[in-house]
This record gives sequence, C-alpha cells and structure tokens, in this order.
Amino acid sequence: MNATAPVVLAIDAMGGDHGLKTTVDAALLALAEFSTLQLILVGDERQILAALKKRKAAADALARIAVQHASEVVAMDEAPSKALRNKKDSSMRVAINLVRDGRAQAIVSAGNTGALMATAKFVLKTMPGIDRPAMISPIPSMNGHVHMLDLGANAECNADQLFQFAVMGSALLTATQGIAEPRVALLNIGEEEIKGNEVIKQCAQLLQTSKLNYVGFIEGDGVFLRDVDVVVCDGFTGNIALKTGEGVAKLIYHFIKQEFTRSPLTKLAALAAMPALKALGKRMDPRNYNGASFVGVNGIVIKSHGSADAPAFVAAIRAALREVENDVPTRIAHLLVDALPQSAAA
Amino acid sequence: MNATAPVVLAIDAMGGDHGLKTTVDAALLALAEFSTLQLILVGDERQILAALKKRKAAADALARIAVQHASEVVAMDEAPSKALRNKKDSSMRVAINLVRDGRAQAIVSAGNTGALMATAKFVLKTMPGIDRPAMISPIPSMNGHVHMLDLGANAECNADQLFQFAVMGSALLTATQGIAEPRVALLNIGEEEIKGNEVIKQCAQLLQTSKLNYVGFIEGDGVFLRDVDVVVCDGFTGNIALKTGEGVAKLIYHFIKQEFTRSPLTKLAALAAMPALKALGKRMDPRNYNGASFVGVNGIVIKSHGSADAPAFVAAIRAALREVENDVPTRIAHLLVDALPQSAAA
Repeated sequence: MNATAPVVLAIDAMGGDHGLKTTVDAALLALAEFSTLQLILVGDERQILAALKKRKAAADALARIAVQHASEVVAMDEAPSKALRNKKDSSMRVAINLVRDGRAQAIVSAGNTGALMATAKFVLKTMPGIDRPAMISPIPSMNGHVHMLDLGANAECNADQLFQFAVMGSALLTATQGIAEPRVALLNIGEEEIKGNEVIKQCAQLLQTSKLNYVGFIEGDGVFLRDVDVVVCDGFTGNIALKTGEGVAKLIYHFIKQEFTRSPLTKLAALAAMPALKALGKRMDPRNYNGASFVGVNGIVIKSHGSADAPAFVAAIRAALREVENDVPTRIAHLLVDALPQSAAA
Repeated sequence: MNATAPVVLAIDAMGGDHGLKTTVDAALLALAEFSTLQLILVGDERQILAALKKRKAAADALARIAVQHASEVVAMDEAPSKALRNKKDSSMRVAINLVRDGRAQAIVSAGNTGALMATAKFVLKTMPGIDRPAMISPIPSMNGHVHMLDLGANAECNADQLFQFAVMGSALLTATQGIAEPRVALLNIGEEEIKGNEVIKQCAQLLQTSKLNYVGFIEGDGVFLRDVDVVVCDGFTGNIALKTGEGVAKLIYHFIKQEFTRSPLTKLAALAAMPALKALGKRMDPRNYNGASFVGVNGIVIKSHGSADAPAFVAAIRAALREVENDVPTRIAHLLVDALPQSAAA
C-alpha cells in the first residue's frame, strides 16, 4: 500500500471481546506499519493513557495518536436499540461522530455488530435508495477472492433489500477493484429456478431485469469453488455461511495436526512437510481476512471480528485504509444513482 | 455391521445426476459387501437389465436383485408438486410404494430432494404430531459427529416446526446411539439471547420449557467445534451450512495440493507426508457422510447426494441398513408420544 497522504482513523478502543488489550496493541502495530497514519483512540481516556504508558510506545508513534474521551461502552450482548438510545457517549458512538464531523476518514470497531450497524445508520445516514447498510468482506475462493454480503448486519431481509445489497456489492467491486461488470450471484439451496424461498425467488426476478451482471443462483459450495465476484444473501445466512467456513477450516487444521502427530514416522514427515504446512496455515488463517465493510452509509465503517487479536485488528485497519484510498463511499454513491433508478428517484 | 437377517431395500435406480450409471454399480458393490442384503431396483426395466448385463454381475449378486418396472423419472429440477401430481409411475414413487406395502424395509434415492420429501410424506404419511419430515445427517466435528437437521427439505419453517425437528433429532440419537439425553442446540448468528430472527427466538422459548436437553444457541463454527449432539435449523440454513462446509473442505484440499506441488522440495516432502495426507483425505471425504435420513415419516427414506458416485451411494445404502437394524421409525414414534404431548394430542 502506498499511503503517502496522511490518513486519520477513529478506533473504537473499548469495543470487542478484549477491548483495550487488543486495540492498543493493534494501534501501535498499525502506526509502525504505516508512517502517514494517524489514529484517534476513542474510549476511557485514563485507561487508554495507562495502556499506552504500559506499552512504552515509541515517541514517533505516540505523536500520531490522539485520545478522545468517551465515558460509556456498548456491551457485546446489548440490544442495538438500547445502545442507540441510552449510550450516547459510548466509544462506538463518539468514534462514528468523528467520521460524521470530518475529523476522521473512517472508523474501525470490534464491538457489537448490531449496535455498530444501528449507530452508523443513525449518525451517518444511508445513501439515497438504500434501506439498510450491509456488511461485506472478501473471502478466499478457488480463484482468489469473492465478496459476500450481508454477513450478519440484517438478520431478515426482503427482496428489495437483497437487490440493494447486490447493487452495493457490485458498485464496491467496481470502485475498489476496477471490475467493470462484476459477476453477481444469489446464494440459494439449489441452482434450479424452482429452488429457494419466496424472498429469494422475488430477488432473482429483480436481478434478472436489472443492469447488473447477474449470473444466477449459487450454492454454499459454489461460493468457494465457482468464479464469481459478489455473492448476495441475507445477514442470517451470510453469518452462518461465514462462520461455518471458519469452523470447517479449524476442524481440518485440527485433523492435519492429529494425522501428523500420530506416530514417530508421521512426526518426521511433518518436519519435512513444515514449509508447505506453514504456507497452508497462513492461507487458511481467518485473521488475514478480518475487517468487514459496512456499505450503504455515508462514511467508511469497518467491523472487526469481536474476538480479533492485535494482528487481526491490524488487518481491519488495513481494510479501512484501502477504502479511504479509494474514496469508496463517494464512488458507490455515484454508481448507485445509475443502478437504482426507481428507488433513488423515490 | 452385523446384518444376519435378510434386509430388502428399494433403490430409486433412475434418480440422481447420473442415474443408472451410479445406482447399478453401487447396488453391486453393496451386495458384495452385505451377504444378506436384497435389493429391488426400481426404474426402466429394459435399461436396468441392460446395465446389469453390461456389468457381468456375479450370479450370487444377481440372485439377490429384483427389478420393479417404473415408466417415469422425476427430473432433478422438477417442481415437487408437479412430480407428485403427474408422475405416479416414477421410479421414486414406485420405490416409496414398496416401503408402504411392506415389500421393502427402506428406500434409497439420489433424486430430487423436494420431490422425494413430498412423495414420502404423501405416501408414507407423517408421524402423529409432526407437520413436516426433516432431513438429518451426521457431519464430522471435533469430538466425532454431530447430527444436523433440517438439511434442505423445508426451505421455510416456523418455530413449531423447528421445535418438532429438535424432538425428532433428539429421538433419533436416543434410538440409534443410545444417548439418553442428547444435547440439542439451535443454530443462530450469535450465542446471546437477543440475536437472531423472530422464528429462532420463539423456538428457543419452546425448547427452554421442553423436556429436551436444550443447551442454547450455537453459531456456524460451533457446529464443528463444540460438543453437542443435535443442531436444529431450517432447511435453507442447513443446506447452506452443509454445502459451505463441503466447499471449504474442497478449497483447503486444493490449497494443500498447491502447497505440496510448489517446488521439487515440497514435492519430496509430499512423498514423506503421503500417509498422513491420505488419512486426512479420507477423513475429509464428504462421500463417507453421504446418506441423509428423512425423519418424521412412517418408513425409512434415505436421500443420497444427487451427484454421488457409486462408493458414495453405497454409504447411503449403509445408512439405510443401520436404520433398518435399529428399527428407527418405530422407536422415534414411541419417543415422540412422550416428547410432543400437546401436538400429539391435538
């Protein structure tokens, strides 16, 4: 990445399963990696300063850190509506405010997904023609990567909303990867037209008559094996698919370890196989894919996995930098005007 | 398996992506494996006899094969309602009739899932208190296996139906594996109580006040990593989760191959690692898990993957034999009377 112009990111320092333990370490790692990066750590000022002091951060890094006090924290299991109503001084809310006010170009949070979504939508507002923002992330596939949305922000969706996800996903790929006509597929339980529930069937009709490069239904295995650019689904299905994939990867990793430690002979073989196994482990490591983007709001909001460790959280910071560099929300907003004529006009 | 008493299975010989090519090979493999097995191959008599002749089957095997003619075939993309209404002489329907008439103890089909479900329900009827049959199958997990249902027979379900799936899954585990109180979990996008859609939340309440050993929500990764016995979900989610898992396993297998063929050195390492890699491949092979059971109908109906090859189809035949040996439908029906007091009384 060539980040020469200074970039300011807001970090929800209290969010996630591990809070400051992860975010402060990640902040220092990211500042070391990107020399023009500036971070605003949002949360309990006293705790943040203590955490920074304890880590004996370099003067150069400290000079690029600002602390913004916020007196509250959104709990990981808090109802989004309650967080939105009652916690106006939460680290999450204050960090998103910084984006709204132009003081930060993006916000990264490992906090409560539903609350992040509700707050981002409330503070930053959705783009014209979009009912609900969606969570999108690249996931590894046979031919590189596929982008999937929604990954868990919207548990229930109607056909119009799924269609909007398709438009946003397509626009994101055009904006960030220069793909003129991204191939869009709809996740379903079969590739035949008669399969699926009513919402899926209605959305398929909308896609077929749209300007998008719609390639039809895709099944769960196809997400990883077929060559498409965007896979569309509701947040319930997307979250289940994503986490199922993570679970299977961990299970296979466990099997590999078992098979290679079964006997002295296989242990010897493991030594010989170590470089290949290490390379494999790196490719399978979900931490490399951490950092989902909320598309559809007027601003860059990156959601880290709640259980992310510091290197994984840095991956989310990298994702934020990529979106800042590509000015993603502005470009998506432009593309939406063209792709969503009826809704945008409404 | 100790199958001493003769068992008669009906095989939908025309079903699946490969029809007779797979089913006839599988039949001969299964007859060689189980000396007391008898098969009724259902489908186009002329084609079945030609296929048997071509394979030069041993006389001992041929003596245990009967052919039942059926003039029609349900297409893989045919609407279930149409198949049910218009194809009364399909290989699938005639094979299920054999179970209803007591001529076969179970039926195995790789045909259209929705049509198999609709036909089995219509011909065999559901058990008292059960609205819809569900598809259940063991899938590999960290501690051995977990049974998941529904895997794709019911794309949309209400809370009562999901609850019935939980009861049937629990009863199946008690009937086949002797587990007194199977641990039942509900698939969701978070483990906190506030997560998920309305149907999931309602079903969780039903489970909490039931006699079942309900252990709460489980996420997609937990299916493979946590130690539970039964995972309950609607057929849409279950099918996506199952196929996503298959896709990730294939992707990782592809990555392993790539890493071990990257250089002469890694190719040498692959030779040393071959026994461990082969053992791994065997454990990951989804063909070993082929054969989902339809629970909730009065009879044993086993669904093979549509794209199964002959060894995979044999795995489905083995699943049918296990259910016959354990007299599963009778035992589930007994357990349901106790677990579903309100519905069964209705």
